[in-house]
Amino acid sequence: MEPIEVLGMVAGSISAITFLPQVIKTWRTKSAADISLLMFTFATISVILWLVYGIAKKSVPIIYTNSMVLLFSLIMLYFKFRYGKQQIPVAHEA
Amino acid sequence: MEPIEVLGMVAGSISAITFLPQVIKTWRTKSAADISLLMFTFATISVILWLVYGIAKKSVPIIYTNSMVLLFSLIMLYFKFRYGKQQIPVAHEA
Repeated sequence: MEPIEVLGMVAGSISAITFLPQVIKTWRTKSAADISLLMFTFATISVILWLVYGIAKKSVPIIYTNSMVLLFSLIMLYFKFRYGKQQIPVAHEA
Repeated sequence: MEPIEVLGMVAGSISAITFLPQVIKTWRTKSAADISLLMFTFATISVILWLVYGIAKKSVPIIYTNSMVLLFSLIMLYFKFRYGKQQIPVAHEA
């Protein structure tokens, strides 16, 4: 494999897990008020188009990378709907 | 241009602006507590690698898409450092 193709695979592997830290953070904090719904909507639409492109081109790296991103984008959309409301601080009462 | 290449260009165009709604939201709210620093770190590293890949492959769509994503990722990293602290609600006092 040529060095540039190795670079492409490394780039694709990092791209694939880009949204994973956000998924873990939001799952832990149960807070997604600051997250843009439109951002993950754009991400979901674009990776679906990339998946179709990858399947048509028979490109395994494109299919693999975008399948992973689609999974994490859908989880973030779910989290946004579930935890998207602004958290109201709970007063410390007896 | 073949239909599948048009699809690729549409996918790339949406990918390019994926982070834009997040940049606008964070700029407006000045709140980035829920945003994962690691997510935008991964995004920045991967798009720099994709840029090198695109330049080596002389692929204008890859260079264009990833230049845009790099710009928005760097803005989000700046916002995360500037607005990343948990907002403390201001009491309504006289």
